[in-house]
Amino acid sequence: MANKPSIPKGTRDFGPEEMARRNYIFNTIREACNLFGYQQIETPALETLSTLMGKYGDEGDKLLFKVLNSGDFLKDVDEESFSQKDLRKITSAISEKGLRYDLTVPFARFVVMHRNDIPFPFKRFQIQPVWRADRPQKGRYREFYQCDADVVGSPSLNNEIELLSLLEFVFAKLGIRTVIKLNNRKILSGIADYIGASDHLVDITVAIDKIDKIGLENVVKELEEKGLKKEAIEKLTPILTLSGSNEEKLATLSEILKDSETGMKGIEEMKYVVSGYEQLNKGKGSGLSTLDLDFSLARGLNYYTGTIIEVKAADVEIGSISGGGRYDNLTGVFGMPGITGVGVSFGADRIYDVLSALDLFPAQSADGPQVLFLNFGEKESGCCLQLIEKLRDAEVSSMLYPDTVKIGKQLTYANALNIPYAVMIGERELEEGKAVVKNMASGEQRDYCFEALVEDCKSIFAR
Amino acid sequence: MANKPSIPKGTRDFGPEEMARRNYIFNTIREACNLFGYQQIETPALETLSTLMGKYGDEGDKLLFKVLNSGDFLKDVDEESFSQKDLRKITSAISEKGLRYDLTVPFARFVVMHRNDIPFPFKRFQIQPVWRADRPQKGRYREFYQCDADVVGSPSLNNEIELLSLLEFVFAKLGIRTVIKLNNRKILSGIADYIGASDHLVDITVAIDKIDKIGLENVVKELEEKGLKKEAIEKLTPILTLSGSNEEKLATLSEILKDSETGMKGIEEMKYVVSGYEQLNKGKGSGLSTLDLDFSLARGLNYYTGTIIEVKAADVEIGSISGGGRYDNLTGVFGMPGITGVGVSFGADRIYDVLSALDLFPAQSADGPQVLFLNFGEKESGCCLQLIEKLRDAEVSSMLYPDTVKIGKQLTYANALNIPYAVMIGERELEEGKAVVKNMASGEQRDYCFEALVEDCKSIFAR
Repeated sequence: MANKPSIPKGTRDFGPEEMARRNYIFNTIREACNLFGYQQIETPALETLSTLMGKYGDEGDKLLFKVLNSGDFLKDVDEESFSQKDLRKITSAISEKGLRYDLTVPFARFVVMHRNDIPFPFKRFQIQPVWRADRPQKGRYREFYQCDADVVGSPSLNNEIELLSLLEFVFAKLGIRTVIKLNNRKILSGIADYIGASDHLVDITVAIDKIDKIGLENVVKELEEKGLKKEAIEKLTPILTLSGSNEEKLATLSEILKDSETGMKGIEEMKYVVSGYEQLNKGKGSGLSTLDLDFSLARGLNYYTGTIIEVKAADVEIGSISGGGRYDNLTGVFGMPGITGVGVSFGADRIYDVLSALDLFPAQSADGPQVLFLNFGEKESGCCLQLIEKLRDAEVSSMLYPDTVKIGKQLTYANALNIPYAVMIGERELEEGKAVVKNMASGEQRDYCFEALVEDCKSIFAR
Repeated sequence: MANKPSIPKGTRDFGPEEMARRNYIFNTIREACNLFGYQQIETPALETLSTLMGKYGDEGDKLLFKVLNSGDFLKDVDEESFSQKDLRKITSAISEKGLRYDLTVPFARFVVMHRNDIPFPFKRFQIQPVWRADRPQKGRYREFYQCDADVVGSPSLNNEIELLSLLEFVFAKLGIRTVIKLNNRKILSGIADYIGASDHLVDITVAIDKIDKIGLENVVKELEEKGLKKEAIEKLTPILTLSGSNEEKLATLSEILKDSETGMKGIEEMKYVVSGYEQLNKGKGSGLSTLDLDFSLARGLNYYTGTIIEVKAADVEIGSISGGGRYDNLTGVFGMPGITGVGVSFGADRIYDVLSALDLFPAQSADGPQVLFLNFGEKESGCCLQLIEKLRDAEVSSMLYPDTVKIGKQLTYANALNIPYAVMIGERELEEGKAVVKNMASGEQRDYCFEALVEDCKSIFAR
């Protein structure tokens, strides 16, 4: 019982400082989503396993955290499965609930369950933890937050333009310079058509998606191994190394894909999105973000059906900090076919790391206490509590050190909590009706009468 | 697969409207806690079962949601337990993690694990869901949020006074009139001493805690059944029906308990807290809350060691909406003895019900979109997107209806989402550089040139 307590591998505690920083990220995303007309929803952490199973592939099924049924959980296990220790059958007999693996499948389930109450197009965002029984490693957790914004029920490419604006808005607020990479699944299909390898679409995209990591040479090698013909590869490589402005790239590709109907549809979609984006950014000068058409971008091809988006931090090597795209038929698996959706997901942990690496977090937490009233004894404290109440009414975060201990210890406490001001009202100050305010950073001390302290508290205790 | 999806019993989805209301409650509590110098932490939903088991009694252990180990979960089950279907042994072999049951035990674990990094006294608050495999029923859920504020490491009664202020502050912000009931475990011990039934302390408190529900007569009956002597009961009843002001009650009880050392310590503590509370409320007139000393209040006696607090809504019959008290030795079970703590917990679901019953939620959600730009076609939309971006920069939540569909349908959408303003820029308006703003509630329409629309957006689109 008295063993040193610990938490499960891959999970984390967040102390006050980390929480303030995480709240800064989540609040920025939340406020941006609200400003863009996305509405927040929450779904339960526990979903029935029938909702979750089969949605993430075989590997995903294994990574689901399954919850043991309550009571006599063995009662539904048949003797044969039991005696044969048939893990799969026993699992499904002893567990009917699991923990949410992502926010997308629960969202699809939500849309289907509440279809009659939801006004479509439905713009929702969701910020909640998810759980994966992955092998924990640096930067990969078993419990972590996802932040998703999606629009379902609208095929319009205006949604894509808006999502690009949302990404720009959030990262501009956070001060992160980004490269927003754009592609379209239909263009990938068109490319496969053009090189005469439509049947190798998956192989091609899996390989070229890795071009940043392994280089063109190894991509070619992988394609050869997958059985792609020499001529096909020769036609492909110039497309992967297309250079020039976005406009030039589109013009070139447009020429190349002119015989592929699907490819040209992708080009047309991309042109609409890029032009919408550029209109909005016209006259903004060099902003914090750059749009980069990248025809090797795939991001889980089997999921996306149109636009594909990925955001990288321009100044830190860390992989993508956000991504998304358009998917059709999200809700088909729950019996509601034909609903299209498009969305992006913010990688909160990666964003946290980028802000840390670039030292972009606000220096002073907006959440921590601003003023510590030192405790000189019962009589003095009574007076402090009254003043504190008035400061709080003026929205100045304040507190009394609860115990009457040595003043040095109380000042150490103020420093440990990064509290910028200490107020001292000792016996003499109490008699004279004044308070000594100490600026903890500069050490400077000033006297105020009680009225002034309350009246001018906003300026006296400026952060 | 295409079955109608559902969610587990006792869990809930929260749509945009409920979320806005829940956020209103959580934000009020969060802002109040920050203002009072409490700092937010979060702990993982998953804890190791050794942290959770044995902390909530046998019944509690059964109500823990246990998570199945990954991979071959049967590998640690010994043959004997397996063949005998020994549920307890099998459970502990196949499951080593569980879902958080409350916020108190994880907080104690947090304090012990991070003892060297935490400046004491540690004032923390925590707003997170908890899970209990309880039988779901009206108002009782298997997944629900708790909101706790605690101070650990300070024996000072100033903390109790501050917590009472916090309760007052939060419920005043929410506009809920409350009765704050106060008792002290030491007074309960003193009463048991006084009536000569110290050995029946638990029986007495369990019985008298129910006086509101079952009435004095039934309390007496229960005490007789528990073997309390007639004389003891005769000495007890006048205490339970003490009337008068708080001061008068304390004076009477002080006389009654004068021979019980523990009882007098309780009286002394309560006097300090009541006097601190009254000093702060002096001159406030009839506020929203009343302090009521209630010597029958127990709230899980075995847990609290000093002050006991319970808050009831004055205008709705709904049980307690908040409660708490002082507990000693919270962390002893994790090998860190001698730490005292005191705290309160806000019942978010009950508070939600009270606000609903009294119609106290803000009429207009602060989170929903404020302005819907109607979509008249590609050219008009392009113009809208530019204006929308400027409104967002001015923090006016706005969006374009993404698809070019009938205007009537778009207006219906605005109504369905409670969007207060619609902006119409058709072909003619585009040429003339003006926008028609429709107030959705009054039906009133006004024209603005684009510059004015942006310039004065805060006043044009006032909520």
